[in-house]
Amino acid sequence: MDAQTLPPIIAAMRGQPTPHTPVWVMRQAGRYLPEYRAVRAKTDFLTLTRTAELAAEVTLQPIRRFALDAAILFSDIMTPVEGMGVEIAFNPGPVIAKPIRTAADIAQLRDLVPERDVPFVMESVRQVRAELPKHVGLIGFAGAPFTLFCYLVSGKPSKEFGTARSFVQAEPQLTAQVLDKLADAMIVYLAAQAQAGAQALMIFDSWGGLLGRDAFREIALPPVRKIVAGLKHLGVPIVYFCNNGWTLLDHVATLDIDVAGLDWRGSIKTARQILGPKIAVQGNLDPAALFAAPDVLKSRVAAVIDDAGPAPGHIFNLGHGIWPETDPDQVGRLVDHVHEYSIKRRSA
Amino acid sequence: MDAQTLPPIIAAMRGQPTPHTPVWVMRQAGRYLPEYRAVRAKTDFLTLTRTAELAAEVTLQPIRRFALDAAILFSDIMTPVEGMGVEIAFNPGPVIAKPIRTAADIAQLRDLVPERDVPFVMESVRQVRAELPKHVGLIGFAGAPFTLFCYLVSGKPSKEFGTARSFVQAEPQLTAQVLDKLADAMIVYLAAQAQAGAQALMIFDSWGGLLGRDAFREIALPPVRKIVAGLKHLGVPIVYFCNNGWTLLDHVATLDIDVAGLDWRGSIKTARQILGPKIAVQGNLDPAALFAAPDVLKSRVAAVIDDAGPAPGHIFNLGHGIWPETDPDQVGRLVDHVHEYSIKRRSA
Repeated sequence: MDAQTLPPIIAAMRGQPTPHTPVWVMRQAGRYLPEYRAVRAKTDFLTLTRTAELAAEVTLQPIRRFALDAAILFSDIMTPVEGMGVEIAFNPGPVIAKPIRTAADIAQLRDLVPERDVPFVMESVRQVRAELPKHVGLIGFAGAPFTLFCYLVSGKPSKEFGTARSFVQAEPQLTAQVLDKLADAMIVYLAAQAQAGAQALMIFDSWGGLLGRDAFREIALPPVRKIVAGLKHLGVPIVYFCNNGWTLLDHVATLDIDVAGLDWRGSIKTARQILGPKIAVQGNLDPAALFAAPDVLKSRVAAVIDDAGPAPGHIFNLGHGIWPETDPDQVGRLVDHVHEYSIKRRSA
Repeated sequence: MDAQTLPPIIAAMRGQPTPHTPVWVMRQAGRYLPEYRAVRAKTDFLTLTRTAELAAEVTLQPIRRFALDAAILFSDIMTPVEGMGVEIAFNPGPVIAKPIRTAADIAQLRDLVPERDVPFVMESVRQVRAELPKHVGLIGFAGAPFTLFCYLVSGKPSKEFGTARSFVQAEPQLTAQVLDKLADAMIVYLAAQAQAGAQALMIFDSWGGLLGRDAFREIALPPVRKIVAGLKHLGVPIVYFCNNGWTLLDHVATLDIDVAGLDWRGSIKTARQILGPKIAVQGNLDPAALFAAPDVLKSRVAAVIDDAGPAPGHIFNLGHGIWPETDPDQVGRLVDHVHEYSIKRRSA
C-alpha cells in the first residue's frame, strides 16, 4: 500500500500530514454500546474473545456507528497468556488459578505458537480486515510484559498490585525471566496479527506506571525494547501506551516506537518536548469529559487538539478506556468534532 | 518554641537546616505492626478512630519501636465528614449509605464544630503530645476536599472514581458547592488539631491525581487554597500531598504551602525544580522497596536522599502508605539508614 492510500491513522502514526486528526477510542468496542451489551447478554467474555466471528462483530460495531479512523481488535491482553498454558477466569478481571511465583511455575509457561494456540485471534483479524473500509485502519495489540506479569503474579486484579511489585523487589532474577519469556511470546503474537492484516500494533502497559523510575527502566522497559526490536522488520507502526507513565516519558523516549500513548493527566505539548519529533502521540481526553454538556465536550476536544499543536503525528483518543456509563451520542459528537475542528484548524 | 528546640522535622518543613534528614512513614501506625493488629483484634476500625485513648495508643506504637522523627495522629480522613452528619461505614474503605448527589443532599451537610462533633480527635492529639518526646513532631491531618468528595459522591471506594469524576463534569456548580463546604469544615478541623498540639498539618489529596490538569486547577485546587489561607495565621507548617500528582506540580507550586508530598513515581530533583526553593519536599521511596534485601533497601534509601540533594527542606517518607505485609524490621533499617546516611552526607 503506497503512502497515497494509507488510512489517515496509519499516516499519522508515521508522523505524516493527514487531512484531519484521526481518532479512535480505547475500549470503543465495549459496554457503553447497547449492541455490545446485546452480544454479551448471550455470550460470556471468554467465549467472545475466543470466537472469531463474534470478536469480529463487536470490533466492527463502533465502526458502523461512528466515523472512527480505526478499529481495534476485540480481545483481551490475557488471551495469549492462556495460549501459553495459564488457566485464566474472568470475574470480571482476569483471575489466575495458580499464580506464577517460582522457577517451576515459570518453566511451565510454554512458548506461544499463535496459529496453534490462539488461531481465532488471527481469524478475527482477517474477518475484520475483509469488512473494514480501506480508509479505516486496523490496530492489533498485546499487553506489555510487566502488565501481564502483574496479573500472573498477583493472581487477580488489584489497585496497587503490591504482590507483583514486592515480587519484583524480592525476586529480581525470576522477574527478569518471566518478563523475557512474555516478551518472546508477545513478539510472535503481534507479528501474527500483523501478518493477518493488522496495520498497526499497540502495546498496552496498563500497570507500568505503578513502578518507580529505576524499576521501570531496569525491569519493565527491557522486555518492551525487545518486543519493539522483534517487530521492526514488519514495517507497521508500533504504539506503546504506558498508562500513568508521565514521570517515565524520558525512558519511553528511548524506545524505537512510532507512537506513544498518553493518559489524560498531562499536557501533550509537554510530552512532545520529552519524546522528541520522531515519536507521534496518541491521546488524551479525560474519559470524564464525555459526561460534560455537549458544548463543553466540544471545547475540551478542541483543547486537546490545540495542545497537540500544528505538527503532524497526533492521533486523537481518550486518555483511558471509555466508561461503560457513557452516552454513545457523546462519542459521536467527539468523533465528528475531532474531524471538523482539526480540518478547520489546518485551513486556518 | 524557638528555633533551637524545634523538632528536626518541623525545622525541615520550614526549610531550615537539620542535623539529619527527618523521617516518618505514611500509615506508620498500621497493620504491618503486630501490636497494631493486637489492638484491632479487639476493636473495630470506627471505634478505634473514635476512642481517644486507643487512637493515641496506636499513634504512639511506631514511635516506641523506631527512631521516627514524627508521629501522625491515627484517624481517618472521613472522621470529620461523619462529624458533619454523614453516615459512614468502613468495609474496609468508607461506604456512604446515602451518597451526596443533589442540592438537597449538600444542604444537609452541617457545619463542623470540632469540639462538639469530633472531640475525641483533639483529645487524642493532647494525649499523644503529652507522651511524645520533645524532639518528635506531631502531625495532624485532614483529607483534601476533592478526595472527600470522591467518597461522598461515589459512596464507596473505587479504582477510578468514575461516578465522582463524571459528576464533576455534569454538575460543576454543585461540585463547587460541596467542595467549598468541605474546605470550610477542614479549616476548623485542622485548626482545632493545631490548637490541641499538632505541630504540622497535612492535607491528603489521595485522588486529586485522577483529575486532568484543567479540572484539577479549576475544581480541586481552589478549596485547597482556601484551606491553606485559613490556616496560615496559626504559624504551623502545612503539607499538601497530591498522590499521583506529578503532572499537576506546577499548579501545586502556586499554593502557599510549606511542604509538598511526593509519591514514588518521579524524581525529587525534578519536583524541586518545579516547586521552587520555598516549598520543602516530603517523600518518596517506593513502598515496594521494603521488600528488597536489606542491602538493596539501604541503597534505595540513599538514592532518595541523593535525589533530594544537599539543600535543606527534605522530609524522608515513603511515596505511599506502607503495605500491611511489610516486615517491621525493614522499617527499622529504613529509619536508621535515613539518619546514618544523611548525617554522613552532611559531614562529607
